[in-house]
Amino acid sequence: MAKSEKTVFFFGAGKAEGMSVAKTDAERRMILGGKGAGLADMTAAGLPVPPGFTISVANCEDYYKQGRKLSKEVQKQVRDNMAKVEKDMGKKFGDISDPLLFSVRSGAARSMPGMMETILNLGLNDKSVEGLAKKTNNPRFAYDAYRRFIQMYSTTAMGLSKEPMEEMLHNAKKKAGVKTDPELNAESLKDLCGQFKKFYSENMKGQSFPQDPYEQLWGAIGAVFGSWQADKAVKYRQVEKISNLKGTAVNVQTMVFGNMGDSSGTGVCFTRDPNTGENVFYGDCLINAQGEDVVAGIRTPLKLSDLGKLLPKSYKQLCQVRLQLEKHYKDMQDLEFTVQDEKLFMLQCRTGKRTAAAVFKIAADMVKEKLLTKEEAVARITPEDIERLFYPQLDAKAAKSATKIATGINAVPGAASGKVVFTAAEAEAMAADGEKVLLVRKETSPEDVGGMHAAIGILTATGGKTSHAAVVARGWGKCCVVGCEAININYETKSMVVAGKTIKQGEFLTLDGNTGDVYEGKLALQMPEQPAAYSTIMKYCDELRTLKVRTNADTPYDAENAIKMGAEGIGLCRTEHMFFDTEERRLAMQEMIVAEGVEKRKEALAKLLPFQQKDFEGIFKAMNNKPVTIRLIDPPLHEFTPKDDAGVAKLSKVTGISPEKIKHRCEQLHESNPMLGHRGCRLCITYPEILDMQVTAIINAAINCTKAGIKVLPEIMIPLTIDKKELSIQANQARALADGLIKAAKSKVKYMIGTMIEIPRAALLADQIAEVAEFFSFGTNDLTQMTLGLSRDDAGRFLPTYVASEQDGGKGIFKADPFQSLDQDGVGMLVKMGIEKGRSTRKDLKIGICGEHGGESASVKFCHKVGMNYVSCSPFRVPIARLAAAQAVIADKACCCSCKKAKKTTKKGK
Amino acid sequence: MAKSEKTVFFFGAGKAEGMSVAKTDAERRMILGGKGAGLADMTAAGLPVPPGFTISVANCEDYYKQGRKLSKEVQKQVRDNMAKVEKDMGKKFGDISDPLLFSVRSGAARSMPGMMETILNLGLNDKSVEGLAKKTNNPRFAYDAYRRFIQMYSTTAMGLSKEPMEEMLHNAKKKAGVKTDPELNAESLKDLCGQFKKFYSENMKGQSFPQDPYEQLWGAIGAVFGSWQADKAVKYRQVEKISNLKGTAVNVQTMVFGNMGDSSGTGVCFTRDPNTGENVFYGDCLINAQGEDVVAGIRTPLKLSDLGKLLPKSYKQLCQVRLQLEKHYKDMQDLEFTVQDEKLFMLQCRTGKRTAAAVFKIAADMVKEKLLTKEEAVARITPEDIERLFYPQLDAKAAKSATKIATGINAVPGAASGKVVFTAAEAEAMAADGEKVLLVRKETSPEDVGGMHAAIGILTATGGKTSHAAVVARGWGKCCVVGCEAININYETKSMVVAGKTIKQGEFLTLDGNTGDVYEGKLALQMPEQPAAYSTIMKYCDELRTLKVRTNADTPYDAENAIKMGAEGIGLCRTEHMFFDTEERRLAMQEMIVAEGVEKRKEALAKLLPFQQKDFEGIFKAMNNKPVTIRLIDPPLHEFTPKDDAGVAKLSKVTGISPEKIKHRCEQLHESNPMLGHRGCRLCITYPEILDMQVTAIINAAINCTKAGIKVLPEIMIPLTIDKKELSIQANQARALADGLIKAAKSKVKYMIGTMIEIPRAALLADQIAEVAEFFSFGTNDLTQMTLGLSRDDAGRFLPTYVASEQDGGKGIFKADPFQSLDQDGVGMLVKMGIEKGRSTRKDLKIGICGEHGGESASVKFCHKVGMNYVSCSPFRVPIARLAAAQAVIADKACCCSCKKAKKTTKKGK
Repeated sequence: MAKSEKTVFFFGAGKAEGMSVAKTDAERRMILGGKGAGLADMTAAGLPVPPGFTISVANCEDYYKQGRKLSKEVQKQVRDNMAKVEKDMGKKFGDISDPLLFSVRSGAARSMPGMMETILNLGLNDKSVEGLAKKTNNPRFAYDAYRRFIQMYSTTAMGLSKEPMEEMLHNAKKKAGVKTDPELNAESLKDLCGQFKKFYSENMKGQSFPQDPYEQLWGAIGAVFGSWQADKAVKYRQVEKISNLKGTAVNVQTMVFGNMGDSSGTGVCFTRDPNTGENVFYGDCLINAQGEDVVAGIRTPLKLSDLGKLLPKSYKQLCQVRLQLEKHYKDMQDLEFTVQDEKLFMLQCRTGKRTAAAVFKIAADMVKEKLLTKEEAVARITPEDIERLFYPQLDAKAAKSATKIATGINAVPGAASGKVVFTAAEAEAMAADGEKVLLVRKETSPEDVGGMHAAIGILTATGGKTSHAAVVARGWGKCCVVGCEAININYETKSMVVAGKTIKQGEFLTLDGNTGDVYEGKLALQMPEQPAAYSTIMKYCDELRTLKVRTNADTPYDAENAIKMGAEGIGLCRTEHMFFDTEERRLAMQEMIVAEGVEKRKEALAKLLPFQQKDFEGIFKAMNNKPVTIRLIDPPLHEFTPKDDAGVAKLSKVTGISPEKIKHRCEQLHESNPMLGHRGCRLCITYPEILDMQVTAIINAAINCTKAGIKVLPEIMIPLTIDKKELSIQANQARALADGLIKAAKSKVKYMIGTMIEIPRAALLADQIAEVAEFFSFGTNDLTQMTLGLSRDDAGRFLPTYVASEQDGGKGIFKADPFQSLDQDGVGMLVKMGIEKGRSTRKDLKIGICGEHGGESASVKFCHKVGMNYVSCSPFRVPIARLAAAQAVIADKACCCSCKKAKKTTKKGK
Repeated sequence: MAKSEKTVFFFGAGKAEGMSVAKTDAERRMILGGKGAGLADMTAAGLPVPPGFTISVANCEDYYKQGRKLSKEVQKQVRDNMAKVEKDMGKKFGDISDPLLFSVRSGAARSMPGMMETILNLGLNDKSVEGLAKKTNNPRFAYDAYRRFIQMYSTTAMGLSKEPMEEMLHNAKKKAGVKTDPELNAESLKDLCGQFKKFYSENMKGQSFPQDPYEQLWGAIGAVFGSWQADKAVKYRQVEKISNLKGTAVNVQTMVFGNMGDSSGTGVCFTRDPNTGENVFYGDCLINAQGEDVVAGIRTPLKLSDLGKLLPKSYKQLCQVRLQLEKHYKDMQDLEFTVQDEKLFMLQCRTGKRTAAAVFKIAADMVKEKLLTKEEAVARITPEDIERLFYPQLDAKAAKSATKIATGINAVPGAASGKVVFTAAEAEAMAADGEKVLLVRKETSPEDVGGMHAAIGILTATGGKTSHAAVVARGWGKCCVVGCEAININYETKSMVVAGKTIKQGEFLTLDGNTGDVYEGKLALQMPEQPAAYSTIMKYCDELRTLKVRTNADTPYDAENAIKMGAEGIGLCRTEHMFFDTEERRLAMQEMIVAEGVEKRKEALAKLLPFQQKDFEGIFKAMNNKPVTIRLIDPPLHEFTPKDDAGVAKLSKVTGISPEKIKHRCEQLHESNPMLGHRGCRLCITYPEILDMQVTAIINAAINCTKAGIKVLPEIMIPLTIDKKELSIQANQARALADGLIKAAKSKVKYMIGTMIEIPRAALLADQIAEVAEFFSFGTNDLTQMTLGLSRDDAGRFLPTYVASEQDGGKGIFKADPFQSLDQDGVGMLVKMGIEKGRSTRKDLKIGICGEHGGESASVKFCHKVGMNYVSCSPFRVPIARLAAAQAVIADKACCCSCKKAKKTTKKGK
């Protein structure tokens, strides 16, 4: 640590040096830790905080750099600060007649409850304990404090084993014939102190327990820094995915005592109810107790309101503090306080954790109370807050006692408990019988969609967060765990082996989509409700945002659901899912695929036409007056072919083509890399009659709906375009056909023709392509796959290593999974180029996104920034997109403000 | 045709209007057709050309636009030109006493021999034939001319059947008791004319044969235009891939007669020997004959030198013409002439077709003769000229009489005849016994490489021109036909069914890699030799070019071969091929893959290390003093796993891992889209110990070679990079290891570390990546796949439709197969960005290309233009790259000249 650098910050007597280390609260927390920043804040606000000082996070790094030692410089700064505290308190550290005692606590920028060490009553020794006894006229209190200090210091700072000392305490109570610690008298406690010190010396190579207060202090500070790398703390950060912290700060603070009699007490409280969000003062307290007694739960705590009766003056003061802190932080606070001789001291203040319901209630209330602007309220909501509102959750207690048998990738959050089935057909059959089923598959394919829809949860052995299973399940907000490699499915025996156990069809499993955990048996779930405040906040979002939010929906059911979630149109209607819906449709589709020649193909397509048209009519009806983007057939044809002999036989019967020929044709369709194969608009380049059928279905449906008084805004979308000419061939074909149908029907249906931009070449040549396309929709799933050369189905094997930080055993190459959060550097550059180039040749080009990213907060903000007109996402992510779009506008304004400021500063600089 | 537009161009009397239609010969050919341009050229050069006029190609388009009619405007222009010819000749078209006769011939910009129609002696009728007889005092000649005209006009212009008239001719000879046409006397011919006219009238609804010369002319011109769309012409253009022509021109030219006695004659000749390229006058002629007699082969032609004896004056004149034309065109010419009464007339002049050997001989000789500069000589060579020099060819006559059983995609030119085998192992075994074998597979994989190398030709049922089979075969210049879907292989019975025939292992097939044709049996092949002139021309190329040419080579054998082809280093050494070389290596590799844990993996890698090191030592030795770029492991691991139970059993025995576990592990490695999967540097991110082994092998080999006095310039190349951090992790690891080894060995080995740019993201973020990489090598195979979202293994199903022109039943979306010729618009944009961005952060960044495109002419020129340092391609394509690199420099100079001119014009414009 450089000599000149100030890294220890005093707080007390209404002054807090820490306030000047940074401008924002967040930056202060990074330097002083959360606790230190809170103490500085409260001190500066004039609240009664016991004086002390914060040793900054930088010293933690330095501690490790010095080989787990404190530098001379930090020791000097600590001594300087100690002098200030002594001056403020009028007492001396180590004074044997009236000792100044300290707590030494950790405090990182993010709360890591219970993970790190605390030492109380530091400064006591064999002499000053006597002084304290005299001064307080309470020898029992003094020796109890000393006993606690020796115990904490020995175990925490010196790493001695806890059990022997607990054993001694236990024996002392036995000997005294008492049951609880408070019943031990001063004599017993003094004796215990002697035993502890002897134990210390025996285990510390003959060194006696330190009597020099500074020696105690250096040991304690070192212990707190050391606890940062303790196994449990490292593990906690891994689990909680905390990777941006450099260490902990240390707070050395004057001790106050809530256990000095009935005019003393202690408590923890929230400025509002953290469960419901109600604006009531909420918390627990104990009279004549220390903070750890509240937490330990030895005595039943009192309600906070009881404090008003027992210590009315202190309670009144606490209520004032509550109001003052909420006004200051504009958020619900989590407080710790101690009353010593009716004098209130604030020990901690931090933003309180709360349920999802409370998040919305508090934010909405604070707007009403004019504590927050609408913008501030919206800015505070996180996507996870919304997610938590919608997904059923596993009961935490139930999970604790259950048997976890495997962990996969947490693809879609929520939880689901049901009977295991291994085929889509059985899922459908059992669900039809009213059973709740979990569909377990090696992987899923479009043919499984019916069974997936019937199941309440999905578990796959392979695939990543954007595998077929994950994407489809997410669309429905259905709990889904994928890539669970530990399970070994045997479709023949209808069973799976996992963790040495065999689980048969019909047995219960429970999935936790939040963690990816798989439990044996049926566990209890909690179904959250959406509070009224949710609607209020979402209304604010809609008022703020400029980006439209559409949904990806393939059925009238999905469409209606999406409108409830706030969707303003369909951004992606995948027509191919319609081909799987019934056996009749599947067969017609397969007939089309194996057809020998154009005429036979047209015959098969003619069978599909009425189905498609009816589907579109349903969707248009559900989306009355809202735009509907319909993507023409996209997946490779082999996804539709029969997968077994029975299917082949059936198709042979219908078509009169021999099973051998059908099998040969299906084999021919096999591709090494289907993602880069014969799919998307390439299908309609080779089989233009498919396009004819689909456009006919769309336009006829639009004509019929218009006649029925429904306002239809169809947008025909051509997928996988790579070239202007490729697009124009199909656009011309579609326009000629559509215009003919509209004219013949004497209808006035308007439609648009546009394209997906999902292959790098399309983005690179967007200026040319926009000469033909009336709209762009960025298919960022595929664009990510192509731009990064990364198959979302296969990346599970190595992508986690790319995303995980070094701390967590990964390489930290990507900040986030690029299939979840748009890779703004690479893919984003293509998206930006695509937009700029596209608008360079067609000013009014309508631009949206319909990849998975359309429902991810950071990606939605990116879409706003680069000037898209809308995002489209699965129905369940529509609220998240609405929120992100609103927050993007708020960030815009904030940016403009700071930009202006920056400009002013620059001017001044000149 | 617009009235003002001049579209008929006179030539005669030393003037040729056609010369002013365009500046370059090539442009003139597009307007006037090849024949028309040649006639204009010769006329302007003062050569004796019978006067006439050329009706331009534009009129052919107009003819079809008018519904197969000639517009009034073109008729007017024809009449105007006729007047000029009449003036020049002092005769009148249709003059009954001394008629002016014409030939009417087609002539497109590209020669389409025998495909289109010609009408001779036009202008004769019942009256003028008598005049001609009198004027020439040769009634036989006159009636023979008339008979020929009626015959040609009837069949060609009116589309009457040929056979009845041939039959009449046959009967006339029978009746006259003669065997050949020339023996028929005037009376017989006159009678025949009568029969022909009667036949004409009977078949033309009573219309008599046109007596009006203009009616004849309009009919003849229409016939030539009409022949453009005749089935055979359309088919010819399809086969020859001629797609850029808009039609044919028509040449109307005064008739001259080589059949007017012994002072007349006709001939076709080449200004040099088209077979050897020798500078000798080469050709055939006939005395008292017409051109068609030479072609028809009824009489044995004389040598050209005989003409010198028979008609010395004409011959001398012809020799002068030869010199004049070569000087004018600076190229070997293909001439047609007629001598009429000792007067020489030139009828045609075009650049002569020649063998590959002659191409080089003529070009080199012309430099010596100072007819050409070195640049001009080099500019004239085509990549196909070089290819033709190297590949064995199918004997054309042998092919004609052979049975073609299928046609696939012509992946690698040349021809091969051998015994069929269906597995790589059998190919190796039979080849070891000295058999010539063709390896026939559904598709090939890296495990087949040994067998592919052993085979003399490869045939696959699937895949395109850049499938594994094609790419590997091309590397060796080995004849290869892929995507031959008609063959149906049964590996169990060791046989295949094709065209209804069953072909068993050991039976002979012959492949024509130029056409993709597959023949039954063993056909004769021709092995070309490389002429001395080839070396001369390549030396010129090397003097000119600035772009270095390296090779892709994986073995010392390949490396040595490539040096012979002129390679200046290795641009891509694929290390993984080394893992397949022997069973020992394969097993060690497989052991590494199934290893349970890092330590076991390291053990397996330790077994591979000495093999790799020895391989590298061999390559460094072969490449003494030349740079060698070594790519670290690239393909997905599943390519190395055992493919059958025997393989699994063997691996199980070696590793002690159960076969079930091995199978499970292999299954786990299966990927949906391996191209986008766990491969390239992703392998070394997850298994860093592979990188350690490979870098150790490279650096140790370099150290050993350096000690042995070999100059080693190793460049370690990390494949599939997508991110700077991903690269720097591996670069740092490699550098630390390499530097340690070099230091420990007290060696001074220098090495570089760079990366492939083969994924769009790497090109987009090249500025960041160049901060770590010392060189870039564009892997345009993969870059094309990702940028276009197109798998080269699967694209065969639709890419041909994208590339084929509309005329040929395709969609004409791409000008060329993007896997063969770099997609300069899309992929090229990324390459350019990558280079510019890369050099923005590292000025001296070394940049090359190592995709298939590195050996394709247009792509190499692109690489030169965008500033690469080198291209790398398979050994057999090195000469093509050297040529293209030289031609790029020549184009630069030409461009600079025209740029300067353009600039000047712009200035003037101001």
